[in-house]
Amino acid sequence: MATRERIAAEARAEVEDLLYAYADCLDHGDITKWADFFTDDCLYKLISKENWDLGLPLGTIFAEGRGGLLDRIAAVTQTSVYHQRALTHLITNTRVLGEAHGMIEITANYAVLETLPNQYTKILNSGRYLGKLTRPGNGAGEELKIKELICVYDSALVPASIIYPV
Amino acid sequence: MATRERIAAEARAEVEDLLYAYADCLDHGDITKWADFFTDDCLYKLISKENWDLGLPLGTIFAEGRGGLLDRIAAVTQTSVYHQRALTHLITNTRVLGEAHGMIEITANYAVLETLPNQYTKILNSGRYLGKLTRPGNGAGEELKIKELICVYDSALVPASIIYPV
Amino acid sequence: MATRERIAAEARAEVEDLLYAYADCLDHGDITKWADFFTDDCLYKLISKENWDLGLPLGTIFAEGRGGLLDRIAAVTQTSVYHQRALTHLITNTRVLGEAHGMIEITANYAVLETLPNQYTKILNSGRYLGKLTRPGNGAGEELKIKELICVYDSALVPASIIYPV
Repeated sequence: MATRERIAAEARAEVEDLLYAYADCLDHGDITKWADFFTDDCLYKLISKENWDLGLPLGTIFAEGRGGLLDRIAAVTQTSVYHQRALTHLITNTRVLGEAHGMIEITANYAVLETLPNQYTKILNSGRYLGKLTRPGNGAGEELKIKELICVYDSALVPASIIYPV
Repeated sequence: MATRERIAAEARAEVEDLLYAYADCLDHGDITKWADFFTDDCLYKLISKENWDLGLPLGTIFAEGRGGLLDRIAAVTQTSVYHQRALTHLITNTRVLGEAHGMIEITANYAVLETLPNQYTKILNSGRYLGKLTRPGNGAGEELKIKELICVYDSALVPASIIYPV
Repeated sequence: MATRERIAAEARAEVEDLLYAYADCLDHGDITKWADFFTDDCLYKLISKENWDLGLPLGTIFAEGRGGLLDRIAAVTQTSVYHQRALTHLITNTRVLGEAHGMIEITANYAVLETLPNQYTKILNSGRYLGKLTRPGNGAGEELKIKELICVYDSALVPASIIYPV
């Protein structure tokens, strides 16, 4: 296979590694480390497909910058009251759309399965990640971070409530 | 790792790229471009596992050649009446089984999640892709196209109706 | 991309190949070949997240060594009575955590979709694979086998019953 395809395959693999580590943090890890996947000047948004397609700005979760993420983490860990739940991210169809000015544009599909105590597993949230990734230090060996993550979810209806970011 | 394994990894990555672009076209793209993923003499079939396992030929969607696909697209865009819906393909477990006479045999698992307005997300259709891929121009740098795609789905029952190809 | 990242991408691809072949065996293959994915001194365990998180040992399926797996296969093929069903594994988020003493530690997320005759498709079981893989012959070209596979599933409730391993 040509070098071009090899580079494409490796670039996607690296993006998948980031997304899978991100999901593991939310599903089984330490939620306080969630912010470490992002750049300091990041944008995180969880928005319904309905609003997104109409260009309406309102989202279910909106966090600007590392401070915004830490605020969300504080809400989850300190101020919200909710049942314990098991979450499993299924992240598929990861695509690297292009790279420009040090920013890698990606999409992926996701489904977050949620299981509440004594209940069956159900689809909590599904849709598409629209991401912009970058290497903050600009060095070739630097780790990828999330500059922007828009989670566009399919159903305007949410069973129970979304506590954790998706 | 040996060269053999590297080639295998890159071959699978290329097949995944094709399937993910294909799914994106159906989920978020321009359905009229769906036919461009196939060769002119292609076969597309959506068939229940029950019929497939018994060797019965009848499928829910059957399209032969580019003309057959365009006919299906015309049905979806011009003649059918249906609710708007959000679709999300989860394509996983992609395997390259072998290559012979310029034809790459692949399988993958899929679940198509469907969300109707004011409803929760549900599994519309799940099962297995059985595909044959080829490079029409025979050149090594040529893009992969779908010569044959058989979608063998698990449930003979379909919630509501299947409008779009899966 | 650096050689380190290339090796990581290829190592993950090889693990995915193993998991996808494993799932294909359970979904569409010959269940009697299931044991061949494991080493002779393997451990297979299906356990609820609730028990796992509390350190409780009790699992839904527990099989030690090749003999234990063959025993399970005998139960499925010869002694149990159950409806025919279609199973589709969605395996995602595969991660290679590290390698030590010839043992590759991996995790992946999974959802097993089950379809009973004349029923809709539902999520039978979802959760996380915690695996240890090895090359029994220790040769670099040797196939990977499963030394240990712990399937930690999300819901203590199981719709109907789990017949097949996941």
